[in-house]
Amino acid sequence: MPHRLPPIPALDEACAERVAGYIDTLTKPPGSLGRVERLAIELAAMTGDDFPVVAPPAVVVFAADHGVAAEGVSAFPQTVTAQMVANFVAGGAAINVFARQMLARLEVVDVGMATSLSAEGVVIDRVRPGTANLALEDAMTRDEAWAAIRVGRRAAERAASNGCRCLIAGEMGIANTTPSTAMLAALTGIDVGELVGPGTGVAGPALAHKQAVIEAAMVDRLFDAEDPVDVLATLGGLEIAAMAGAYLEAASRRMPVIVDGFIATVAALAACRMLPELRPFLIFGHRSHEPGHAHALAALDAEPLLAMELCLGEGTGAALAFPLLQAATAMLSRMATFDTAGIDDREGAEPI
Amino acid sequence: MPHRLPPIPALDEACAERVAGYIDTLTKPPGSLGRVERLAIELAAMTGDDFPVVAPPAVVVFAADHGVAAEGVSAFPQTVTAQMVANFVAGGAAINVFARQMLARLEVVDVGMATSLSAEGVVIDRVRPGTANLALEDAMTRDEAWAAIRVGRRAAERAASNGCRCLIAGEMGIANTTPSTAMLAALTGIDVGELVGPGTGVAGPALAHKQAVIEAAMVDRLFDAEDPVDVLATLGGLEIAAMAGAYLEAASRRMPVIVDGFIATVAALAACRMLPELRPFLIFGHRSHEPGHAHALAALDAEPLLAMELCLGEGTGAALAFPLLQAATAMLSRMATFDTAGIDDREGAEPI
Repeated sequence: MPHRLPPIPALDEACAERVAGYIDTLTKPPGSLGRVERLAIELAAMTGDDFPVVAPPAVVVFAADHGVAAEGVSAFPQTVTAQMVANFVAGGAAINVFARQMLARLEVVDVGMATSLSAEGVVIDRVRPGTANLALEDAMTRDEAWAAIRVGRRAAERAASNGCRCLIAGEMGIANTTPSTAMLAALTGIDVGELVGPGTGVAGPALAHKQAVIEAAMVDRLFDAEDPVDVLATLGGLEIAAMAGAYLEAASRRMPVIVDGFIATVAALAACRMLPELRPFLIFGHRSHEPGHAHALAALDAEPLLAMELCLGEGTGAALAFPLLQAATAMLSRMATFDTAGIDDREGAEPI
Repeated sequence: MPHRLPPIPALDEACAERVAGYIDTLTKPPGSLGRVERLAIELAAMTGDDFPVVAPPAVVVFAADHGVAAEGVSAFPQTVTAQMVANFVAGGAAINVFARQMLARLEVVDVGMATSLSAEGVVIDRVRPGTANLALEDAMTRDEAWAAIRVGRRAAERAASNGCRCLIAGEMGIANTTPSTAMLAALTGIDVGELVGPGTGVAGPALAHKQAVIEAAMVDRLFDAEDPVDVLATLGGLEIAAMAGAYLEAASRRMPVIVDGFIATVAALAACRMLPELRPFLIFGHRSHEPGHAHALAALDAEPLLAMELCLGEGTGAALAFPLLQAATAMLSRMATFDTAGIDDREGAEPI
């Protein structure tokens, strides 16, 4: 079976232009809401709606395990993936708290944990029980990568059919900064040493070991750096492929995406290499503390909304940025115009 | 009558320490929520509450006019101050939209517009009908500056007695970047040329004229740069003094303050010069596009939460930052601990 990607529509530039003009009639000096105004215009271009709506948002957390955890590249044991998924189901994790705050639809998808969790509240859509150890062999097959992409597409489809108006993808997978760093090195050609970081807390000799594991894999694995699916299959992770699929599906439905931190941005980079038309549908939520994130963002020419020094994942940084999108849409739909408010126009001075 | 300021309590360092320890028991790698964690600790220290609450927030917009508007330093005519106040009352301004989004108590206070507006929904607490033209004479008397400070204190008192748990002060006053720039030059000794900016949109020759007006006033007016109330009276504005008063009163009640943009930060700087104990109760919402703001922030050693290129005032940038405070408090009160969630601890790696 050939693997197909959903077509992504062009931005609605006419809508963007109308909205830009309308913003200058609102009761504030032109341009004075800065980036909030640009966000409003971007959301209009994505959705084709003069009064775009982003609420309710969908948060989909993809959980999977990584064979490379056996190399001791993480500060936490692999058992924590399933334990954190149970925590998501119980509502006690950071993403639960932030998702409730913004009235999001939160879904947890098991795209390939090492052991299946039969907890109610987890969508079971497993491709394989964790990836293979990329230090020893390809993380997964090409078909499995495509299957994980389809898991993500199905999740975005459910978000849309449940009425969600923008998409945040998060991830949970002990050791997953290791495959993300390897993928980023492969996709950008940047040295692993520039990209590798503490993840959830490795430091000192453990960090040097993590770097050595990734560098060895870059030599030992065979991949075509020009083929993002090959990079995903050889060096990636099931949840990373699923995030890429979710982004592509959301954009095909004109649903704005808020990209989270390092791992999410690597997934976004892989997805943009598959379909460059994806890029304008991506809003970047935050600049992570993980050193590789700056490089991933630069590769996408992306300037995130927040810089709160987070390095948690789960979609938390994207969730914290959501109120800014909501402010942009509320500005459009709820502010008065100079005309309706009966306010005098500017006098004399030149526009800047 | 001697003018008194409310005593500001010390931070509750013991509470901050307890909360910092508690955060490390929550189900996330230590430190991984970065600045959100530091915000939670700061809010605990301010309020003395292990589970601080910041909702509902109060937004108080102080409106006043400026005699210096006669010098043509603004892109808008002075009539716009009252027209915008009518817009606040009607609910159509940017701050109305953002205040509704965060379920804030919004109050508009006429601390000295040129002409009083008898609209329902404006708190009338007028000191004088606008300041004098600081290009020609002192903006106000010392007693009037103190009276405006008391207007701000009363507003913060009302916010507290109405159950608000943090305070945002905004301003509306055509031409008010001119007195703010003059005050900042006086308080910091920095050249006006480094500080002056477009405000709501003056550029080219109009901007050069604005700079010349401020530079002349710095020479022609007599003030004691070491006395912040003298600087307020000679070069300032009624709404700027009221904001300073509101900050001081809020801090005296252990109520966290979110400082808005350029004008608000100059008010905060003046207030901190009156009582340096105020400083730790101030959270800075955003980095404004107005060039003087960076200098005002540096004088307070402040790093704002957002950088959205706003230059509107009204409290809008502080309002956009509020959800980050709410996220910090929700993290504390609603996340599970490793213990209660039954999650394995870190293994091996050193904490970073």
